[in-house]
Amino acid sequence: MEKINGGVCAAPGFQASGAFGGTGKNEEKGDMALILSDTVCNTAAIYTKNKVQGAHITVSRNHLKNGKAQAILCNSGNANTCTADGVEIAEQGCQLVADACGIAAEDVLPASTGVIGQPMPIEPFKVGVPKLKAGLSTDGHTAAARAMMTTDTYPKETAVQFTAGGRTCTIGGAAKGSGMIHPNMGTMLVFITTDCAISSEMIQKALSDEAPESYNQISIDGDTSTNDTVFLMANGKAGNAEITAADDDYKAFCEALHEVSVDIARMVAGDGEGATRLIEAHVVNAPTIEAARAVSKSVICSNLVKAAMFAADANWGRILDAVGYAEADFNASNVDLSIHSDKGEITVCKATAAVPFSEEKAAEVLGQDTVYVEIDLHDGACEASAYGCDLTYDYIKINADYRS
Amino acid sequence: MEKINGGVCAAPGFQASGAFGGTGKNEEKGDMALILSDTVCNTAAIYTKNKVQGAHITVSRNHLKNGKAQAILCNSGNANTCTADGVEIAEQGCQLVADACGIAAEDVLPASTGVIGQPMPIEPFKVGVPKLKAGLSTDGHTAAARAMMTTDTYPKETAVQFTAGGRTCTIGGAAKGSGMIHPNMGTMLVFITTDCAISSEMIQKALSDEAPESYNQISIDGDTSTNDTVFLMANGKAGNAEITAADDDYKAFCEALHEVSVDIARMVAGDGEGATRLIEAHVVNAPTIEAARAVSKSVICSNLVKAAMFAADANWGRILDAVGYAEADFNASNVDLSIHSDKGEITVCKATAAVPFSEEKAAEVLGQDTVYVEIDLHDGACEASAYGCDLTYDYIKINADYRS
Repeated sequence: MEKINGGVCAAPGFQASGAFGGTGKNEEKGDMALILSDTVCNTAAIYTKNKVQGAHITVSRNHLKNGKAQAILCNSGNANTCTADGVEIAEQGCQLVADACGIAAEDVLPASTGVIGQPMPIEPFKVGVPKLKAGLSTDGHTAAARAMMTTDTYPKETAVQFTAGGRTCTIGGAAKGSGMIHPNMGTMLVFITTDCAISSEMIQKALSDEAPESYNQISIDGDTSTNDTVFLMANGKAGNAEITAADDDYKAFCEALHEVSVDIARMVAGDGEGATRLIEAHVVNAPTIEAARAVSKSVICSNLVKAAMFAADANWGRILDAVGYAEADFNASNVDLSIHSDKGEITVCKATAAVPFSEEKAAEVLGQDTVYVEIDLHDGACEASAYGCDLTYDYIKINADYRS
Repeated sequence: MEKINGGVCAAPGFQASGAFGGTGKNEEKGDMALILSDTVCNTAAIYTKNKVQGAHITVSRNHLKNGKAQAILCNSGNANTCTADGVEIAEQGCQLVADACGIAAEDVLPASTGVIGQPMPIEPFKVGVPKLKAGLSTDGHTAAARAMMTTDTYPKETAVQFTAGGRTCTIGGAAKGSGMIHPNMGTMLVFITTDCAISSEMIQKALSDEAPESYNQISIDGDTSTNDTVFLMANGKAGNAEITAADDDYKAFCEALHEVSVDIARMVAGDGEGATRLIEAHVVNAPTIEAARAVSKSVICSNLVKAAMFAADANWGRILDAVGYAEADFNASNVDLSIHSDKGEITVCKATAAVPFSEEKAAEVLGQDTVYVEIDLHDGACEASAYGCDLTYDYIKINADYRS
């Protein structure tokens, strides 16, 4: 498996573009993104489990009943959620793309992110869609990723190549993260494209199985959004025999999807609102995979752990506290805890009791852009990771100001 | 029912004191508190459900096996948690109180709050306990409440009088809150005393039944502490016939306990680390009490809601988002949302859709010390409240600094 550039356009047959239509405020960044496949794709999706859901989810579910799509239309700045005519507006946006690109409106998937409960007019789409169509190119992936952003500080893209059925396949994605990020099944907005030939059924299974491994293990602030969505489109252009069962090719596809998904998880978590560093918690020797996931996520969700990480303070009692209240069955009496980064490793706790460590070394280890928390439960053989960030003054600043 | 002064000394037969021993750093505030009853009391307790628990909980559980106690010894600054010899130190502290006061060590309940994982020496108790004994008086309740504090900004006390069996009874309490507050059953440290005659069995039932109504509905930061504890001591001096069944007197006792507990919940939440205001979420017309509790707590736990409240910004979409991801069964398609305070009320959402409101009025309503969020689910007849606070720069400051 090899990393490559190109994001959602890395796989042959996909073009993208970004433009400003007016659902957001930043003309330079843009607020609308279009991803278009040359052909109809087998497509999978996962959505937020929030009971309050964005209008785009209603429309996308409907359009994806046949497991196929050809384009994704995304806007930022207005979530089109809790709006009286949100579904109609989302449908009209799809129709504008269909007319501009000569495809069926049912093959367009809408996606929205931004402020909840603000009326969504159609005018910005009337302005933006022609620009999006005109701007489509295989180089448009970064413009698309940028237009999706709200409080993100950089566009998030990734892509890898792998082999299936003797053919080189490519899978690449773009993501929008930043705030209200605590996915319960899908996540923020993530769009992944691949040229691998894979059936609608198997592509949905691959995405649904991946969600608990990566997307659901991200948390910025504990708030599960109303609009979380992951779309995964496969156009089949790699020419491999279509994957229709859980065979070796399927396994290769899932590994590539996992690589892309973990990359996205790290980018989204590390660029959380106001974040200065990525916190990756890794739990080993848990009795079940569910316990490993719950404990690792509990640690990266703790406001107290996050605030201590901001100060590069090895206040490990807070980590153990978060381990202890994780909702899972495990034995908490024999927990080892160490923290590492590019600058080395410190062990702070063995068998749930303090061990001496150098505060000077700890400050150096914790002062880095990525900090790994290693938790050994000595209570089984399962492991999992979770992806979070520190809690900073800027998180407050951003979220006390966001609507204005 | 009438509110009175006197905190844990409001009920006849209880004395208290505060002193500095050295587990904390602030000599003026003190770091040790003692509450002593003239006689052995029927006593109830609830503790954190965190799998990692403070040593004082092990000792208190053991001492309370007979449902009786006569004194509470509390220290702040060091949690005595994840320490190798924590249980022995806690036992020694109880013995020091027993020797000083001429009571049995098994009738002393220890309680600790502060930094986790720091060695706890016995010396501060050798210094503090004689001072505590010397300072005992019926006026010592505030000194005790103050000595319990860590990052609290004021001592938290309350008391009410009620009638049971034709006698006037009193119940009063002291609490320590501030951070790592998201009680799962017990809460922070709360000590309540009463002169009402009530059996050990009924007093434990009353406290256990009260916990989900008030203590478990508080959250400052989502972090369930390792040391949460509520003690409730009844000395029987009111002279009422002992309550031994769920009769009218028991009901009067429970109502008074609820009044005291809600007072404490409001004080603890409103004085959360860095908080500038109390946020009280009230859910009505929920299908079950569990749904009402889950939805109200979800709202006051949301970092995004909390940050918006800090800015007095009526970003109600975040409230509806938190309603939507609450882990409970209810219909989220017909939610009404209004916000009120001393300065009036605004309705922001009807049937899960936006309604226009004055931003100027909203800023005035939300700018007060206590802000009420009223959520009508139109899906049943149950209600519940939850108690939280805003998320501020000072929360970060306090928690990036706490250990140093």
